[in-house]
Order: sequence, then C-alpha cells, then structure tokens
Amino acid sequence: MTLPLNPAMAATEPPPVMEARRWLQGVAFPADRPLINVSQAAPVDPPPLALRQAIAEAALTNDAAHLYGPVLGLPELRAEIAAQWSAAYGGTITEGQTAITQGCNQAFTAVLSTLAGHGDEVILPTPWYFNHKMWLDMQGVKAVPLPAGPGLIPQAEDAARLITPRTRAIVLVSPNNPGGVEYPSETLAAFRDLARAHDLALIVDETYRDFDARTGRPHDLFADPDWDDTLIQLYSFSKAYRLTGHRVGAITASTQRLAEVEKFLDTVAICPSQLGQIGALWGMRNLTQWVAGERDEILARRAAMVNGFAALPDWKLLGCGAYFAYVEHPYPMASDALAKRLVQEASLLMLPGTMFQPDSHPEGRRQLRIAFANIDAGGIAEMFRRLAAFRP
Amino acid sequence: MTLPLNPAMAATEPPPVMEARRWLQGVAFPADRPLINVSQAAPVDPPPLALRQAIAEAALTNDAAHLYGPVLGLPELRAEIAAQWSAAYGGTITEGQTAITQGCNQAFTAVLSTLAGHGDEVILPTPWYFNHKMWLDMQGVKAVPLPAGPGLIPQAEDAARLITPRTRAIVLVSPNNPGGVEYPSETLAAFRDLARAHDLALIVDETYRDFDARTGRPHDLFADPDWDDTLIQLYSFSKAYRLTGHRVGAITASTQRLAEVEKFLDTVAICPSQLGQIGALWGMRNLTQWVAGERDEILARRAAMVNGFAALPDWKLLGCGAYFAYVEHPYPMASDALAKRLVQEASLLMLPGTMFQPDSHPEGRRQLRIAFANIDAGGIAEMFRRLAAFRP
Repeated sequence: MTLPLNPAMAATEPPPVMEARRWLQGVAFPADRPLINVSQAAPVDPPPLALRQAIAEAALTNDAAHLYGPVLGLPELRAEIAAQWSAAYGGTITEGQTAITQGCNQAFTAVLSTLAGHGDEVILPTPWYFNHKMWLDMQGVKAVPLPAGPGLIPQAEDAARLITPRTRAIVLVSPNNPGGVEYPSETLAAFRDLARAHDLALIVDETYRDFDARTGRPHDLFADPDWDDTLIQLYSFSKAYRLTGHRVGAITASTQRLAEVEKFLDTVAICPSQLGQIGALWGMRNLTQWVAGERDEILARRAAMVNGFAALPDWKLLGCGAYFAYVEHPYPMASDALAKRLVQEASLLMLPGTMFQPDSHPEGRRQLRIAFANIDAGGIAEMFRRLAAFRP
Repeated sequence: MTLPLNPAMAATEPPPVMEARRWLQGVAFPADRPLINVSQAAPVDPPPLALRQAIAEAALTNDAAHLYGPVLGLPELRAEIAAQWSAAYGGTITEGQTAITQGCNQAFTAVLSTLAGHGDEVILPTPWYFNHKMWLDMQGVKAVPLPAGPGLIPQAEDAARLITPRTRAIVLVSPNNPGGVEYPSETLAAFRDLARAHDLALIVDETYRDFDARTGRPHDLFADPDWDDTLIQLYSFSKAYRLTGHRVGAITASTQRLAEVEKFLDTVAICPSQLGQIGALWGMRNLTQWVAGERDEILARRAAMVNGFAALPDWKLLGCGAYFAYVEHPYPMASDALAKRLVQEASLLMLPGTMFQPDSHPEGRRQLRIAFANIDAGGIAEMFRRLAAFRP
C-alpha cells in the first residue's frame, strides 16, 4: 500500500470472527454433516414478534424514529436503565449517570478514550475479549495481561503487582467472555478497592448479566454510595433482546465521565440508532418474563455442555457460563490449526484460544472457545458426537 | 473528577451542536416569535412513506434485519454504491472498494485511524467541520489549519507549504460544511496531484453531493484508473434520504485500506444497523426522482438565502450551497456572543464561526453558519425579517 498506514493499526490483529468466517470459504459441508457455527456469540433467531411489531410501528408512525436524537441516547431509555439498575443492584443510579451507545463494543471504546491515550496502560485479565485488546492496540495503549489462572477468576492481588504510574484502568468482563465464568461478588469488590486505592477506573462489562446462573444481584458495587468515583459499567441489549443487528449498548458511570464520553460519541456516532433504542426500551418494559425464559434455556444448554465434556475425559472444561464454554483440548497441535481441521473434518467452527491470549502465553495454543448459546440441545448433542469421533 | 482523564480528551472541545442546544434551556420563546433552529444540518421531516414502509416490512419479515451482518456492510448495498458511483463519476469502483459505516462521522474516524496516530499531522482547510477537528484532537493527531481564504476555496499550493514529514492526509469537504461552497473539479485534481506526489491520502467528504447545484459529475477523481492509490471518499445517507436517525454512511477506498478499516469498525461498531442499511438500499434503488425533487427544493432555498443577504448589505455572504450559508456579521461583538443574543432576542439559533476555526483565527469571531436546509421559504423569509430588525 503506497498511502500512509498508521503503524498502531498495522500492528492490530484482524477481526477474529471475520478471520474465522474466511476458513469456511470453499468448504463443501456434507449434507449429513452441516456446519455447526459456535464461533460468534450471537442469537440465531430474531426478537419476539411483539418486539418486531413495536419497531415496525415506530418506523411507520414515529417521525422522531428517523431523525437525529440526543448524543447520549433517548432520555426514556436512560431513565429506564437507571430505574431498573437501581432496583436490581440495590443502589442509586440516576438517568444522568447512564448513556446509550451503538452497541457495547462502542461503549468500551468511548469509555477507554476518556481514560487512556498513547503510552498509557490498561490491565486486562487473560483470556481477554479480543475487541478490547484490538482497541488498546490501535490506540497505542499498552494492554497489560493479567493471567486469570485456574478457575479463570483473576485476583486483585495479582493485578496490584502490575500497576505502574501509567496504569489508567482495569477491565473485567463478568459473566466472562470468553471464559464463561461468573466472578464472585468478593472478587469484584476487591478489584474495586484496588482501583480506588490507586485512582484507577474499574470497568465491568456485564453484557451477559441476564444469563447469570446465580439468583440475586451479582455484586454489591452499585450499593456503594460512592460507586461512580471508580466504577464504569457496560451493558449490551444485543443478547437479552436479540437485537444484535440494531447495535444498542449502554454505559453507567459518573455524569462528569459521560460529559467526556459525549465528545467521543458525538464524533464517532452522533447518536445511536433511534429504532434500536425504541426496540430496547420496549424490551425492557415488556419482556422481563420472556428474558427469564431465555435464561432458563441458556442455563439448560450450559448444563448440557457440562455433561457433554464430563463424558469426554480427554477434554478439560475450564469455564462454562454466559454464552460460552472455554475448554482445553487434548491434541498435540496448536488450537488454531485444530480449529481449521475441525471445520474441514467435523463441520465445527469454534475460535482458538490463541485469539484470546497474547502470543507469549502458550496456554492459548491448548484452548478453544465454544459459543454454545447459538445451538439448541440437538445441536449440542451432535457437536459432542462429532468431537467424540474426531481423530486428528 | 478523581478518576484518570485522558489529557487529549480533556483538551477536546465539547460537541458544538449540544453546546448550542444548551443555550435554549430556560428560554421562553414568545408565541408570535417561535424558535427558528438553523444550528444542525438535519432534515426535519421523516423519509417518504414508501421508504418507512420498506423499513417496517423488513422489521416484520426479514429475520436478518435483527442479526449481526458483515462488518463492512451489506454486500447488496456495497454493490449498489459501486454501480451508481461508477456511472456517476465515470470511473471503475468495485464492491470491494466500498464499505458501510454507522454514519459518515464514523467513516471519517475509521479512515483516519488507519492513516494517522499520535504525533502525526493532518491538513484541514478552515473553516473546518468541527467533528473532524474533535477526532484529531482526541487522537493526539495535530490538525494543521489551511485557511481557505476569499471565496472559501482552499488552494493546493497553500497546502504544499504546510506538508511536513509527519503529514499523513489532507481532508476536503465538498460541497463544503460549513462554507457551503462547491469546490471546482480543478481544485480537487490539484489536491489529488499534491497528495499523490507526497504519498498522502486525499480524503474527500461528499456528504452533500446530492445537493450540488452543478450538472454532471462534480469532479474527475474517480475517472483516474489509479484513483485508489490516493483518494478516499466519504458519503452519508442521512441527508439525501432523511435517514439521520439510522446512522448510515459509506467509504470508497482501496480494498487494502478497507482491510484496515475493518479492524476499526469491528472494534467500534461490529456492523452497521441492518434496518438503516435496508432503508439506504431501498432509497438508492427507488428514490432517484424523489431526491432530484429534494435537490430542487434545497436549491430554491439557497436562492432565497442569496437574495435575502443581498437585501442586508451590512452582512456579507461568504459561501452558500449544500445545506449552509456561511456569513460575516456586521456587529462589533464576537460571533459566539452574538449567537446567544440572537437566541434571546430574535429566537434564532445559528452556530458561531468560532466553532469552525482555531482560536488563533480572528475571522471566526465575525462569522456564523446558517443551516438553511432545515427551514422552508416561509421560515427563511421570517429569519430575514428578524435579522433586519435585530439591533445589538
């Protein structure tokens, strides 16, 4: 390429999901062994009819659904989040402490831009969510890996040893992508205390909160009346309401932080999609019972994953929950080579652990992420038949 | 704020449109003098009913409209752009040289991220589009102002003197925001030659191309068979099809450039809104005649602006076209102070030139941008009555 190329962008890895899709090109899957795609965490069905009708109705009758709206999102949706979050987390969250984004990835990039610039450092537990790593790379921010270790639960005392004068934030994802594990409330509190003691931001991405297996609130962070001096929470409407194609996410943070976020969102987005926000609001107001049923279904699939791997003793299930199983495979080959062979020989598309780890971490070569929420009980059973029959 | 704050973000100005909206808070507009808002370039009416019906139909019947799509956009929409652009510009543009974004602002940020990082320089003619400046500021990229001078047409020979070893790109907006002027084809060709000679990218933002007063193609840049070694074109579906609330824009560039853009879009967007893209595609395929009528209406409003300022000899019309009139006011006060008084005393909201210039350029204090496309002939006549009666 003769034109200039930002070296930070050149050094950023290409998108793993698109890379994995390219492995499918030219592959003819046998009629009796169709592709099972567990690469991307994505509902495969559309939202319930009533939600689609609400969106269609708005498209026809609500002029504002086609026009610019406020940069930080529809006030009604922000207020709904504030009310539901306050009740769910046992704390006080105001409308002014919430903002809407074009999806949760954008929420992360907006928040990070207000915290860290070129030369700064951000602590990410490994295995990490690859888009978090990609953003830090393209911004010239150093991603400092924090190995989560056995059980895939990172420890605040390990993070403490990684803090330098350039550290700006610690990023946690719970329930975790790709690890599937739900971080204990005490773990999150310990990270909050650590971040507060060092004037760092603690970012908690709760994209998968609606599928947490635990009852009650998953943590007490919002019950702290001073939560907004440290905590920034991210959320996605994509999974709970099957709105992936509409791109709606949310940030909960201090109003001062959101004034900085507003600069980023005005420049990158102007505003979120109005129809997507209308759909998200309708979902929050009307689909509580339906989402509870979705959670039951995901938890049943999770149980099927646990049982399935229990019957494959050579494989090791490292974490299972949210939309994901994160596993260690038994074969003497790197996980990216194995993933490509599973496409060719078993019509299974899953992402290798190398996509969630720095190259310097050898454990990524033994690991795979399986986005099991994409497939039903029959699909899970068929996946295990194929894994059991696979011989490398 | 006790949490870390990225100094580049802190140094970025807040969004001008949101800032101007705050001037309206607490102002009671008299019943016989309602607010005339010419601050933001935004259609005030929704798209035609048939387009709204196409979106509603997709929401109800097209499952894919709710699910993730390709990062670089719907293949059908990319192919439609390639075909229509090839015909309109007399060149060869392939589907692989196009990409869809969540609005044209995002197109700019994605492209710039692949070109320039911390410490690099980008040349922006002044008056500039404020979101371009904001992105460069928050990224630590130096915006090098190129004063457009009389007639608001920047000159390539002036830009040549600003190029340094850190220069990565030159950004042009034609028809211009905020200046309203249409750059001559020769001007664009001279900038292309300059950029090519120095291995820079030439970014041409053609958000307002559908409202160009000239017949035939506005430039010959795409007729150059090697266009994609230098040129990157940006486009917005927001204005032509009144889809501002759906956030759909486009990039036309080399396929190698778009592979880098894909990293940014995957991380910031994952994909554009599916319904927005469906609406944009329907518009491209069905609304050519309707858009031509819209253009006629905008050109009539433009003529009314030219005539109106001809009757206000103390005011100087510096540029008029696209959605904008850019004017020099006659009063001994800064334009930002004047703009606030026009809200209070004439119920007129327009943006001061200080929002489109570096603080070091005193001419911004004499200038105002009027987004006249927002108001019809009656609104324009009323605006001129109020300007004529205004006494500071």
